Amino acid sequence: MAKAELAENGPVRGTMVVRPYGFAIWERMQSELDRRIKDAGAEGAYFPLFIPESYLRREAQHVEGFSPELAVVTHGGGKELEEPVVVRPTSETIINTYFSKWVQSYRDLPLAVNQWCNVVRWELRPRIFLRTTEFLWQEGHTCHATMQDARDYALRILTDVYADFMVNVLAVPVRVGRKTDAERFAGAATSWTTEGMMRDGKALQMSTSHELGQNFARVFDTMYVSETGEREYVWQTSWGASTRLMGALIMGHGDDAGLRIPPALAPVQVVVVLVRDEEQTGERAAALAAELAAAGVRVRLDDRVDTTFGRRAVEWELRGVPVRVEVGPRELAAGNVTVVRRDNQEKSQCPLVGVVKRVAALLQEIQAALLAEATSLRDQRTVEVDTVDEALEAGSGGFAKLSSTRLGADGEARLNDEGLSIRCLQRPDGGLPLGGDDEETVAFVSRAY
Amino acid sequence: MAKAELAENGPVRGTMVVRPYGFAIWERMQSELDRRIKDAGAEGAYFPLFIPESYLRREAQHVEGFSPELAVVTHGGGKELEEPVVVRPTSETIINTYFSKWVQSYRDLPLAVNQWCNVVRWELRPRIFLRTTEFLWQEGHTCHATMQDARDYALRILTDVYADFMVNVLAVPVRVGRKTDAERFAGAATSWTTEGMMRDGKALQMSTSHELGQNFARVFDTMYVSETGEREYVWQTSWGASTRLMGALIMGHGDDAGLRIPPALAPVQVVVVLVRDEEQTGERAAALAAELAAAGVRVRLDDRVDTTFGRRAVEWELRGVPVRVEVGPRELAAGNVTVVRRDNQEKSQCPLVGVVKRVAALLQEIQAALLAEATSLRDQRTVEVDTVDEALEAGSGGFAKLSSTRLGADGEARLNDEGLSIRCLQRPDGGLPLGGDDEETVAFVSRAY
Repeated sequence: MAKAELAENGPVRGTMVVRPYGFAIWERMQSELDRRIKDAGAEGAYFPLFIPESYLRREAQHVEGFSPELAVVTHGGGKELEEPVVVRPTSETIINTYFSKWVQSYRDLPLAVNQWCNVVRWELRPRIFLRTTEFLWQEGHTCHATMQDARDYALRILTDVYADFMVNVLAVPVRVGRKTDAERFAGAATSWTTEGMMRDGKALQMSTSHELGQNFARVFDTMYVSETGEREYVWQTSWGASTRLMGALIMGHGDDAGLRIPPALAPVQVVVVLVRDEEQTGERAAALAAELAAAGVRVRLDDRVDTTFGRRAVEWELRGVPVRVEVGPRELAAGNVTVVRRDNQEKSQCPLVGVVKRVAALLQEIQAALLAEATSLRDQRTVEVDTVDEALEAGSGGFAKLSSTRLGADGEARLNDEGLSIRCLQRPDGGLPLGGDDEETVAFVSRAY
Repeated sequence: MAKAELAENGPVRGTMVVRPYGFAIWERMQSELDRRIKDAGAEGAYFPLFIPESYLRREAQHVEGFSPELAVVTHGGGKELEEPVVVRPTSETIINTYFSKWVQSYRDLPLAVNQWCNVVRWELRPRIFLRTTEFLWQEGHTCHATMQDARDYALRILTDVYADFMVNVLAVPVRVGRKTDAERFAGAATSWTTEGMMRDGKALQMSTSHELGQNFARVFDTMYVSETGEREYVWQTSWGASTRLMGALIMGHGDDAGLRIPPALAPVQVVVVLVRDEEQTGERAAALAAELAAAGVRVRLDDRVDTTFGRRAVEWELRGVPVRVEVGPRELAAGNVTVVRRDNQEKSQCPLVGVVKRVAALLQEIQAALLAEATSLRDQRTVEVDTVDEALEAGSGGFAKLSSTRLGADGEARLNDEGLSIRCLQRPDGGLPLGGDDEETVAFVSRAY
């Protein structure tokens, strides 16, 4: 984290500073997610940071869930405020206040908005990117005419936006499933989740998509007039993914030498490192970087020859750049450069004339290899078990998989006592449990961040 | 504002909700500005929302300037905080805390970071987009080895990022100049500004770029070791532009029918309006929209034929879409469509086969016409005067232009008493006053938002 210059702690406990290299990765995450969100029909918007305390109190479960984590502004402009305001921990309440004005008729539905913003949840055990008092995220909020429409949309976001990004860009295989009642978002009817397995055997909740039912609609009077002239409450969803995804990148792919960024995500896909500037090596390295850029590769030229080559090589490894192309006088004399894969550290010689083609192939290979490696590790760490005791053991170093009815509420409570939890529920074939649970419903149990 | 569905007031006084259409415009502003900022070498980063109160107190002028506007968090996670934290009104103090760790050697300079974020300045007389308690902005912060490097960078941002965006994208001609000592940013050595003239005769400060000198460096110990081995304080800049630019768009181009968005900025440049769906008119309209999209035009198809044509036409006018292409059965029978310019409401018939070419030409014409119109209005409202009394009169409905030494500190105080201010100082040829002021230095006086 520190050596790769990703982020560091802020002065107020639990806050963080995202440094330029870390932020460049986050910007790539944002752009990939935002494109998918807009493709799903949600439009950008922005709602205020400050929410009157009374708004949060209106939905009983919601306030119960968030009260312990709130930051409260009591003074503004040099005066004590008449009503304290909270710094948004999430925006269901304030957004519903506006939805109830904007939605009148079935013609206004579906209504889907998304905002990229900061939120604050006071964190007792902060850890950069994984649990921070302030974090950056996107939160989507929608209104629909029917429960089915809302469900379809919540699941569309879950699969087409989140799981697609995580698998195909971030190269982290995720278990997609439903949260148990105990793990449900405060105020939701049903919460869906994508759960990744990190390299240390802990699970990470990487995004959630909630069906809110009519819970907030009833409290905030968000109603529409149907085609037949009836006034009905809307059905809603909300869904979010945050800078926690940076944690997934680090804990899901990092090795002892530092980050390993999947090429589809990497702000720098290839670094061309000039070993020494002798006999036109510098010109050749610059020309090669330009050629790669022209071919659409996100490339950086490192010609800082006043720093030792070894130190720079270590720095690019730390930063997880997928491919390093080393341009030195000796190889160049033979018409070659050295190409190094970050994922497995393999080095090979490549004729200078074939570098662009080789790099393009390598970027695809590395993307696939990181996903395959993470999938294999995840599968190795998934153990089918039969009892709560076995789940406690297997779930301490990966996913324990067992029947959810066998666990039951008592089993879940025992897991929680030991610091484990049910990360998600699935059908036996890996599908989503859309109906009620039965003894075939599978629970994945693990420790989690 | 309301009818075009741009924004509305938030529940906490002075806050705002930016609605999807307004936010789409802001996203275009962000993307145009961010590209220019990155071209100028500044990298994205993120610093915490919460700043310990003590940090702000460290720079005397800075705290004096911002204290009256602070929002203060006194409680977090259910407890009273040991030290209250303020919600950032701007980030010089917290960023310098990190710069002082990151900068060691002259090799680390220049260091340039930029963050897009929300800031809070408690506002007694709020007005959406122009003066809001919470607003969105970018704030850039840099460190340099010499005063000259810092100045060069502050001015590069002022001209290549801000003025270029405002003139060539937003189509608002800006007076680029220096702030007087009285109008300088709290903690800066020199503040540079871009001042627009709105259609109601008031000036709007549309961005600022500050030379901070070594003021913050001395307080936060931001030092570097020079090539000759000396420890030196860095020279710094900071610069920002905010959602106030949305105000500039509305007040700088809007007319009685609503917004008029310059094509280079517009999220929707062309709307293809299906008048009635008869005799394949619908297919033709959809095909035309697809053709325009393929040509790189940001186009929207409006085929909501269950809403009257008149109502929809008014809606697109309100929303300021530069070009409206009306596709109806009667014109189509003659092989034509109707093309309407939003800037001057001119309507013309255009052969269907020539629409793409015509639209491309029109978008350029409209961009130029809006800038020409705003420039002409601004120039008409600029009056050269000789006395403070004349400045008070002329500056009440536009820019009064006079010698700054003739005004003097007493004159400036009198202007301020009457609600006017010196918006900026320039050389007689319109250039920047880089040296000290003399009697040739020109002051532009106006009322301002």
